Amino acid sequence: MTPPARGRFITLEGGEGAGKSTQIRLLADALRGIGIDVVTTREPGGSQGAEAVRNLLVNGDPGRWLPVSEALLLSAARHDHVARTIRPALEVGRWVLCDRFADSTMAYQGYGHGMDRGVLDRLRDIAIGDTVPDLTLILDIDPDQGLARAAARRGGEDRYERMQVDFHRRLRDGYRAIAAADPVRCAVIDASAGIDTIQGHIRATLALRLGVVW
Amino acid sequence: MTPPARGRFITLEGGEGAGKSTQIRLLADALRGIGIDVVTTREPGGSQGAEAVRNLLVNGDPGRWLPVSEALLLSAARHDHVARTIRPALEVGRWVLCDRFADSTMAYQGYGHGMDRGVLDRLRDIAIGDTVPDLTLILDIDPDQGLARAAARRGGEDRYERMQVDFHRRLRDGYRAIAAADPVRCAVIDASAGIDTIQGHIRATLALRLGVVW
Repeated sequence: MTPPARGRFITLEGGEGAGKSTQIRLLADALRGIGIDVVTTREPGGSQGAEAVRNLLVNGDPGRWLPVSEALLLSAARHDHVARTIRPALEVGRWVLCDRFADSTMAYQGYGHGMDRGVLDRLRDIAIGDTVPDLTLILDIDPDQGLARAAARRGGEDRYERMQVDFHRRLRDGYRAIAAADPVRCAVIDASAGIDTIQGHIRATLALRLGVVW
Repeated sequence: MTPPARGRFITLEGGEGAGKSTQIRLLADALRGIGIDVVTTREPGGSQGAEAVRNLLVNGDPGRWLPVSEALLLSAARHDHVARTIRPALEVGRWVLCDRFADSTMAYQGYGHGMDRGVLDRLRDIAIGDTVPDLTLILDIDPDQGLARAAARRGGEDRYERMQVDFHRRLRDGYRAIAAADPVRCAVIDASAGIDTIQGHIRATLALRLGVVW
């Protein structure tokens, strides 16, 4: 028997209010509609150990964790998530759609908090090994618009949303720099448009980059 | 005004049942008796954030954490502990005695679990920066004797104690290799002796290495 072809690993990235969760849900439905077996997951979290680490991270004071500790905790969670959820799914041919992945740590801790980016490169390699996404969709939006959307949504886990708008500008610049440095893996999607327009751009990108026939 | 001289940073290392806690308590008392301001602390833990991470680590299944995740969690806790407890104490001239530190991760995850030691070197540098111990006392004991002592003590946090004796042999060999590679910082103390004899060796080592006049 031939083993199943490895699935595709797609990550969605972007600042607050870019609409990642909505777009992942729509994309998963569309892929299932053409017969692809899809797993959706998110970071921080996505496996039992990673969810336990997530609980340490998402609540409490903005100053609770030093940037280096936060990056190490995120990397611990990511390693568990990759080893126990993502890689096993890919190996049996399932496609994995992940809401935030390693680029979030580079954008938030590196560009946002100014942590040494060489250190973050090393932590990413330790955490994920060769489980690099096949495609990363970066939902790009002006921070004022994104933060207004996020505030309208109202949620409990809003530690980052309460931070200064300057932080969110550095974050956006960081995501754009990540995309520019790795254009084969990354695609920047304009997330200022309406939900259906954004989804259309995402499906067109999957057609172009991964050969998906819709 | 002259700022106070930086305090000394001393770590105690060794396998289960080597008597680290007892020896730290006796050493702290002896140093206080000669007028030195001492802080005792331990890993994993020793600061608010690090204790929260400790709770994830010390209980539950031996297989709950993959070695790489465990090393990342320990490093996150260590960074918090260094930044919020150890370095501030040293800077005001206090001496810090720490029950386990970075060598424990190298011994347990590297030598015990066979994790890549180059990765562990990089994680140690990320976590501790230049806060390297002035002296590391490695309490060396045959695993059979150490495990029997630990079993007699009976405790709840015994995940490591339940592991195979082979693991504890690798651990002992690891500590000896760490000491051999860094003989200026490390001193191996024979921990098979009685409590007072061990403490005598420890005080002699502080006299020799740090110039402590008892």
